[in-house]
Amino acid sequence: MSEKTVRVAILMGSKSDLDLMRPACDVLEELQIPYVLRVLSAHRTPERTAAFASGARKQGIQVMICAAGGAAHLAGVVSAHTTLPVIGVPLARTPLAGQDALLATVQMPKGMPVATVAVDGAANAAILAAQIIGVADADMAGKVDAMREANRLKVIADDESLQR
Amino acid sequence: MSEKTVRVAILMGSKSDLDLMRPACDVLEELQIPYVLRVLSAHRTPERTAAFASGARKQGIQVMICAAGGAAHLAGVVSAHTTLPVIGVPLARTPLAGQDALLATVQMPKGMPVATVAVDGAANAAILAAQIIGVADADMAGKVDAMREANRLKVIADDESLQR
Amino acid sequence: MSEKTVRVAILMGSKSDLDLMRPACDVLEELQIPYVLRVLSAHRTPERTAAFASGARKQGIQVMICAAGGAAHLAGVVSAHTTLPVIGVPLARTPLAGQDALLATVQMPKGMPVATVAVDGAANAAILAAQIIGVADADMAGKVDAMREANRLKVIADDESLQR
Amino acid sequence: MSEKTVRVAILMGSKSDLDLMRPACDVLEELQIPYVLRVLSAHRTPERTAAFASGARKQGIQVMICAAGGAAHLAGVVSAHTTLPVIGVPLARTPLAGQDALLATVQMPKGMPVATVAVDGAANAAILAAQIIGVADADMAGKVDAMREANRLKVIADDESLQR
Amino acid sequence: MSEKTVRVAILMGSKSDLDLMRPACDVLEELQIPYVLRVLSAHRTPERTAAFASGARKQGIQVMICAAGGAAHLAGVVSAHTTLPVIGVPLARTPLAGQDALLATVQMPKGMPVATVAVDGAANAAILAAQIIGVADADMAGKVDAMREANRLKVIADDESLQR
Amino acid sequence: MSEKTVRVAILMGSKSDLDLMRPACDVLEELQIPYVLRVLSAHRTPERTAAFASGARKQGIQVMICAAGGAAHLAGVVSAHTTLPVIGVPLARTPLAGQDALLATVQMPKGMPVATVAVDGAANAAILAAQIIGVADADMAGKVDAMREANRLKVIADDESLQR
Amino acid sequence: MSEKTVRVAILMGSKSDLDLMRPACDVLEELQIPYVLRVLSAHRTPERTAAFASGARKQGIQVMICAAGGAAHLAGVVSAHTTLPVIGVPLARTPLAGQDALLATVQMPKGMPVATVAVDGAANAAILAAQIIGVADADMAGKVDAMREANRLKVIADDESLQR
Amino acid sequence: MSEKTVRVAILMGSKSDLDLMRPACDVLEELQIPYVLRVLSAHRTPERTAAFASGARKQGIQVMICAAGGAAHLAGVVSAHTTLPVIGVPLARTPLAGQDALLATVQMPKGMPVATVAVDGAANAAILAAQIIGVADADMAGKVDAMREANRLKVIADDESLQR
Repeated sequence: MSEKTVRVAILMGSKSDLDLMRPACDVLEELQIPYVLRVLSAHRTPERTAAFASGARKQGIQVMICAAGGAAHLAGVVSAHTTLPVIGVPLARTPLAGQDALLATVQMPKGMPVATVAVDGAANAAILAAQIIGVADADMAGKVDAMREANRLKVIADDESLQR
Repeated sequence: MSEKTVRVAILMGSKSDLDLMRPACDVLEELQIPYVLRVLSAHRTPERTAAFASGARKQGIQVMICAAGGAAHLAGVVSAHTTLPVIGVPLARTPLAGQDALLATVQMPKGMPVATVAVDGAANAAILAAQIIGVADADMAGKVDAMREANRLKVIADDESLQR
Repeated sequence: MSEKTVRVAILMGSKSDLDLMRPACDVLEELQIPYVLRVLSAHRTPERTAAFASGARKQGIQVMICAAGGAAHLAGVVSAHTTLPVIGVPLARTPLAGQDALLATVQMPKGMPVATVAVDGAANAAILAAQIIGVADADMAGKVDAMREANRLKVIADDESLQR
Repeated sequence: MSEKTVRVAILMGSKSDLDLMRPACDVLEELQIPYVLRVLSAHRTPERTAAFASGARKQGIQVMICAAGGAAHLAGVVSAHTTLPVIGVPLARTPLAGQDALLATVQMPKGMPVATVAVDGAANAAILAAQIIGVADADMAGKVDAMREANRLKVIADDESLQR
Repeated sequence: MSEKTVRVAILMGSKSDLDLMRPACDVLEELQIPYVLRVLSAHRTPERTAAFASGARKQGIQVMICAAGGAAHLAGVVSAHTTLPVIGVPLARTPLAGQDALLATVQMPKGMPVATVAVDGAANAAILAAQIIGVADADMAGKVDAMREANRLKVIADDESLQR
Repeated sequence: MSEKTVRVAILMGSKSDLDLMRPACDVLEELQIPYVLRVLSAHRTPERTAAFASGARKQGIQVMICAAGGAAHLAGVVSAHTTLPVIGVPLARTPLAGQDALLATVQMPKGMPVATVAVDGAANAAILAAQIIGVADADMAGKVDAMREANRLKVIADDESLQR
Repeated sequence: MSEKTVRVAILMGSKSDLDLMRPACDVLEELQIPYVLRVLSAHRTPERTAAFASGARKQGIQVMICAAGGAAHLAGVVSAHTTLPVIGVPLARTPLAGQDALLATVQMPKGMPVATVAVDGAANAAILAAQIIGVADADMAGKVDAMREANRLKVIADDESLQR
Repeated sequence: MSEKTVRVAILMGSKSDLDLMRPACDVLEELQIPYVLRVLSAHRTPERTAAFASGARKQGIQVMICAAGGAAHLAGVVSAHTTLPVIGVPLARTPLAGQDALLATVQMPKGMPVATVAVDGAANAAILAAQIIGVADADMAGKVDAMREANRLKVIADDESLQR
């Protein structure tokens, strides 16, 4: 697989979700995973969403990340058009503080799983995507291990700095 | 409009939802509103769902009723393919007791309203459909008024029977 | 029907709700739907509310939009006095962040549906009103279709701008 | 005041609520408080409800107890037509287990308090009514004290029986 | 009863609750109901709280208003020491936004009702107190009616100002 | 300390809570911790409860376990009268399924902690009591370690039985 | 990779969870994915759990499925010891109906994602595992596509049977 | 036991939790309880966490305080490696406002209690630790009594200042 081939797609229901999804981009860039960022709405551009989801595997995409708030249907609609793993990121965009998006994302019916991460959990969605790619890509698994080791060392440094 | 033309469509995500939706059928039959009952899944048969929703207005359908449990996406997906009024019935199908279906149905983003009724509120969905039809159909409005009057008299009778 | 006849009524329980309901006015104006804006309280002016609701259909009004926070009873009380479609907008006005208004609006008993939209979903209430009017008014249905198409194009433009 | 004058009214939105409200009747009978039991719906018989509430004080009624499930509006609607104290009993009648009725009863706007008791708390509603009457009726206050003393002794007896 | 006799007691668990309870004082002053304001904690000064509650009726107090946040026990503890009506005001004082205080106040066991008002509903607690006093005090009932009429006229004025 | 001295008190608000608290008794008996079981109500027998709590430490009691449902005030009231560690067991006794008891038990104000365990978590309350006693009683700590080791071996046995 | 190599591990915190996890086994068997079923507790056998998680990748395991109820820590603890994708299945095992397990599973901190599926969503966990394996295993992707096609045909058959 | 021996350990999952845990430090310092403050993550440094927990009792530590937000696993993981009492402090660190951390901390399975205090209840965690130490340390019990008496006097002073 060429280094340039897009491996992860980040889909948002609205361009205004970009601020909350930036941490996902940062993680993918740190891990050097080529990705594409799309504004595709489950409701306002359903055909474009379906078309993109249906063709994603052929394009070489391996994981779909779908972020939405409120009655967050994007991850579910995307999962209806692909059997690639779909990661759902519930966003806290309404007065109900993400409780709506969480339930609308995670409570999928039998046959259509969405791998749901925490409310506003964009960074973790990207890390999960890397872990999924790492199942059959030892190099990627190694990068995730290295990132985690860095986190571990940072916690240890924080711990030690507190003792002094 | 011929008396035989289907005016309301009841869509369920699964045939097992039929028991909870039976009260909607009963109301439509009482009000002599021709309807069609379909099993169309937002996730398992997305194209059939989209096709049906897209063509509904041309078929003469005036209101869509969509029932689903869990991460209930059916009403939202249908609303993405038609500008007919879409009524959502959240079903209590998971351990979360309908709280998931309610939020997944009602918290729709700007531009895509779903007219949501109570959890397991199938009868009310049908009455709301009749009220919507009644906006421009005085005969239907009259039937709804009559049904309501009958309910009123029943409450009065219950009230009086209690006094004795 | 004269172009000047009021077709939609927006009712608020308090004048202070006006800021949250402004988006409904904007949508109705964009769609050129004549409307009236009223401050009518389910509890403080019950007779005026009942009188207005009872007479609404005769005035030519086709859809009632009722917005309230907390133990939001306005939509239910209005629906008790008319068989016109009643749209409820739960407002996030208390520390419970709209959860109270949502349940108080949507969980209506059999016979008295309220078409509930999202918490603070004023714009969607107006769009739903237009969709209801559009059931028997092809011109209105066309306007809603056009508004939706504009939204679709905006999402596509956002999507494309992100690719560059 | 004659011993026969009705002092408390118990209102239910539906005759089917009678089973849950029976404990309120039992308490009132034990305390020898004359009461009337009515089926009055906030939505299905609004005029009868308003008329009864408006005339209650003149009839000699001193406290209103209102029981309802779901989007429980009865107590609020009654409070709109009387300044007598209104006690609300939220009933667990929907899959949301009374959470809906609780919020719809207690979260009343400024100016219209409803004295809310626990979900399915019919007995406590009657005791609270007696306490309210007891503010200016020393005999009633004494009866409530006696009932409470009996409860106290029962707990002590239970406690002692456990030690043996 | 002398005009100077304290008729209502407002109890707060902490002096810092005073800002949220000020509206209750304002209402009582507007209705010319003599009241006392106390800082009495269910947990930190249990004996003082019990002593005050036990002696309240003899002092001529007719209604107790108890405000607390979090695991709000004050109203329950006070009700354990008096059979005067106890009004509970749940305060939104923790990250759980009053949901904790509401349930801790309203879900009282059989025999110990607390008349619960809305989260942060201090003004309504005072109005409810006046309504309770008004059961046997026609002058007070008249004052509450007048206050309500003023509210009604204000809503009507707001409604009319919007039409212009 | 004599082996017969009561070291743990289990308090229940009602004798009917005994079924849910039996597992606590079983654990204490297994660990040979002498205990007393009392029915003491925060609201119905407040003086007895306060007296027992106030005198507990002098009697040699080391930990208080308090179980209650609904607006569960027992643990809080007991903690107001002793500085012994108070363990709260929220019971699922109302339609709100223990959510009320959990918040009413755990959300205690500053200065009055209640060590809260899971809803219906009677067994864990007893184990926690043993762990607290074990802080300064090596024999008790050893018994808890042994109980835990037995649990560990049981999980391992279950794990192995599944492999066969 | 040999057809016999275990590719998925299903971990449960207790043997009593087996009934709820059986559908995951059924799916894996239908898709001919070799799996191992283990009882490993985050709290009672932490070392065994850590050891199994740490060694899983070397054993050829590609996806971990972790099921637990209440304060469901198993998936999080496993994810702390492997960078393989970890799927969490929240189980409805307490009076809080799975709401506790859902939040304890999905709300993971940055760096440690758990791919969470619906409450009691065992079948979907297995399907998601197959989709993850299918990212780099075209044969597996084909099997998932076939399973989904069968589901699609079943919905269509249900839909058609309803029309007759 | 030497005055210098650490008796309480405060563990945080992240250094950024320090601001919310400062009140626990303040209480321990006021009570002159030697403590250690550690950054130990259940997920990022599991071995260090397990090692510290396993060795805590031998170091003379008597109580563990564990603070975490979101899917708060720290207290549970620590309790898996020690039979010392473990106090859990759920932190409000996500859009779900601590509801996630509360349930993830308190709903522990049988055999592994976590003594949970209020959301963001750091001060109470420290007081509870002191109460636990005070079970067998009369001097410490006296200090806690004195702190409580100071609180009592402060409430009384606040109460009296309000009367003037």
